[in-house]
Amino acid sequence: MPLDTTSPASAAASLTSLETPALVLDAERMQANARMMQERAISLGVALRPHVKTAKCLEVAQAACGGMPGPITVSTLKEAEQFFAAGYTDILYAVGIAPGKLAHVARLRRAGCDLKILVDNAALAQAVAQARLTEAVDLPTLLEIDSDRHRSGLKPDDPALLAVASQLRDGGVTVAGVLTHAGESYNCRSRAEIEAMAEQERAACVQAAENLRAAGHACPIVSVGSTPTARYVRNLDGVTELRAGVYIFFDLVMAGLGVCTLDEIALSVLVTVLGHQADRGWLLTDGGWMAMSRDRGTARQAVDQGYGLVCDLAGQPIAGLQMRDANQEHGILAFDTPQGARDLQAEFPVGTMLRILPNHACSTGAQHSAYQVVRGASTHIEAIWPRFNGW
Amino acid sequence: MPLDTTSPASAAASLTSLETPALVLDAERMQANARMMQERAISLGVALRPHVKTAKCLEVAQAACGGMPGPITVSTLKEAEQFFAAGYTDILYAVGIAPGKLAHVARLRRAGCDLKILVDNAALAQAVAQARLTEAVDLPTLLEIDSDRHRSGLKPDDPALLAVASQLRDGGVTVAGVLTHAGESYNCRSRAEIEAMAEQERAACVQAAENLRAAGHACPIVSVGSTPTARYVRNLDGVTELRAGVYIFFDLVMAGLGVCTLDEIALSVLVTVLGHQADRGWLLTDGGWMAMSRDRGTARQAVDQGYGLVCDLAGQPIAGLQMRDANQEHGILAFDTPQGARDLQAEFPVGTMLRILPNHACSTGAQHSAYQVVRGASTHIEAIWPRFNGW
Repeated sequence: MPLDTTSPASAAASLTSLETPALVLDAERMQANARMMQERAISLGVALRPHVKTAKCLEVAQAACGGMPGPITVSTLKEAEQFFAAGYTDILYAVGIAPGKLAHVARLRRAGCDLKILVDNAALAQAVAQARLTEAVDLPTLLEIDSDRHRSGLKPDDPALLAVASQLRDGGVTVAGVLTHAGESYNCRSRAEIEAMAEQERAACVQAAENLRAAGHACPIVSVGSTPTARYVRNLDGVTELRAGVYIFFDLVMAGLGVCTLDEIALSVLVTVLGHQADRGWLLTDGGWMAMSRDRGTARQAVDQGYGLVCDLAGQPIAGLQMRDANQEHGILAFDTPQGARDLQAEFPVGTMLRILPNHACSTGAQHSAYQVVRGASTHIEAIWPRFNGW
Repeated sequence: MPLDTTSPASAAASLTSLETPALVLDAERMQANARMMQERAISLGVALRPHVKTAKCLEVAQAACGGMPGPITVSTLKEAEQFFAAGYTDILYAVGIAPGKLAHVARLRRAGCDLKILVDNAALAQAVAQARLTEAVDLPTLLEIDSDRHRSGLKPDDPALLAVASQLRDGGVTVAGVLTHAGESYNCRSRAEIEAMAEQERAACVQAAENLRAAGHACPIVSVGSTPTARYVRNLDGVTELRAGVYIFFDLVMAGLGVCTLDEIALSVLVTVLGHQADRGWLLTDGGWMAMSRDRGTARQAVDQGYGLVCDLAGQPIAGLQMRDANQEHGILAFDTPQGARDLQAEFPVGTMLRILPNHACSTGAQHSAYQVVRGASTHIEAIWPRFNGW
């Protein structure tokens, strides 16, 4: 039986000591992104409720919250479990609640977690009211508002909004507020369009809150946000809190939207050159789509970045070099223009380590179980931060 | 601090007791797929070396190997570690070996694992020969052959093939054989094209072996395979072993290729209906792209199956109902033709559980940490089998 055959990599090592592929986090950039959004929330006069689904990592959430457990948004009950165990109590589960998860929510609430849930229709409200009875614990619930026809939610002026709120109240459930997410902001083409979408997001959510208040609901929470709208929104009058997630790392989709610059992207995947197919201008690496995810989010943007942009070991982009294609454990890198006499074998010999900026931080992160933490251009690994995945 | 708040699901439960999304494996179909490929290998007169990258699960690999640890193919050293710890010793790591992984390979070999590695160029061969010296252990190495211009490998008639083999031998490294993978078989349009690709795969690999033998290399292993070619190949003269992976579960990409039928697909993702957007004909579920992966492998096939085909709780496809789009934790289901007066809320009320057949078993599996094992149309969970991910 094998003993001690796994890699002896430690936090004292350099990126060059790692087996690849590996997920690299630039803590300097991540902390700057965290501060940027904290300052945005302060200047807009709202609380910040970071979405921890992107990082699924306690150390990153701590930075996002400014050092102490604060209000957070989660996308799974597993995230709620993990963060509650780490001392977070003000948790908003921002996906409509499946009836089969209500007993689990009740267990968390009884254990002391102020977990809030979300509904957008009468059937879910009925399930929550029923669980309130069965479980004998309040299940504070937000109403999801549809501000952009992107996914789910009720229109602010839909009579069903008041009906669902009454149904909750009549069932003894606290109507905790309203929430919207302008997912369509990912399809905007300019900063002006994002600003307009942010105002649309704000206006719809505030209108819904006012309609509920006119019907006698206190509706204390008015929660909006997406990374694009959060970065560029000018006015959040009537809103109480801002949610955003991917800003903590940023990625190529956000860069393509103009929401960040390449040098704000904090996440990359470390790979090793395995060979060349010189006649096709290919570099083969050991980082395939399993390491990057299958997310090709820039494919529908003005500039398709393939599976990612290639940087050197210090994180500096190599002009024109993209991850063009991928197999499960192989990456194919190529320059975006014919390179003529360029000698790829001399420039990027076998064994060269490179870092790939991802299309989408959420999906790439989910392929890995830990972050190798560096700072700026240094290749020194100052920490290894675990992340969790799944449900 | 929370205690006992996680789900109490046990192996005695039914699918209806699960929190969704969850990965469901039909063991009856999986075992039939395992037997089918075992019988193919026997009738073709070759050994079967299943690729365990699809399932990354000991119980599934055991079925693929016919009950006992047998020869396996891996795509990561983590798989090699896990399977060696479970008693597998004849392991082929079928990705070109990054120089930074050679010390790890040497540790596994010293511990008794007959791990074989792969190279396709002089620089990698030099790194292997160097590690042979440094680590003082043989590192038996296969040469990767390019049979279809799909990815990596040396052409059978490339003089570099003999040069690299000599370089290995001169460095004291055993030249264990040749390997090819006809990745282009995934782009075939008919069974006849797949059969032709299988013959091309066989012929290239056997030709490479003969060229090496003429130069004095024993070249004992001649290894070919991909699921499409393995299913339809007619003749493997000169080949010693067949590799394939995704056949163990099959998926919609394989069905689109004509390599399997829908009722051979053993893997699905269980989701719950959260709501409806009736005017758009949408069902919203709690299984998004995080549960399915971002793999849209059928998008380039004749029939684009979206993020997957929808089945009922017993695993029977619901004609025309597809997972059309996805957010991170939301799925959007819709019928592929306008449904007119169809009442989705009545037919699929909130709380309804459905199962989604995935585009690609490898990528969907990787989003989950365990299989909920059922048998045929039963919803009884007879076991929970862990899977591992990452590197």
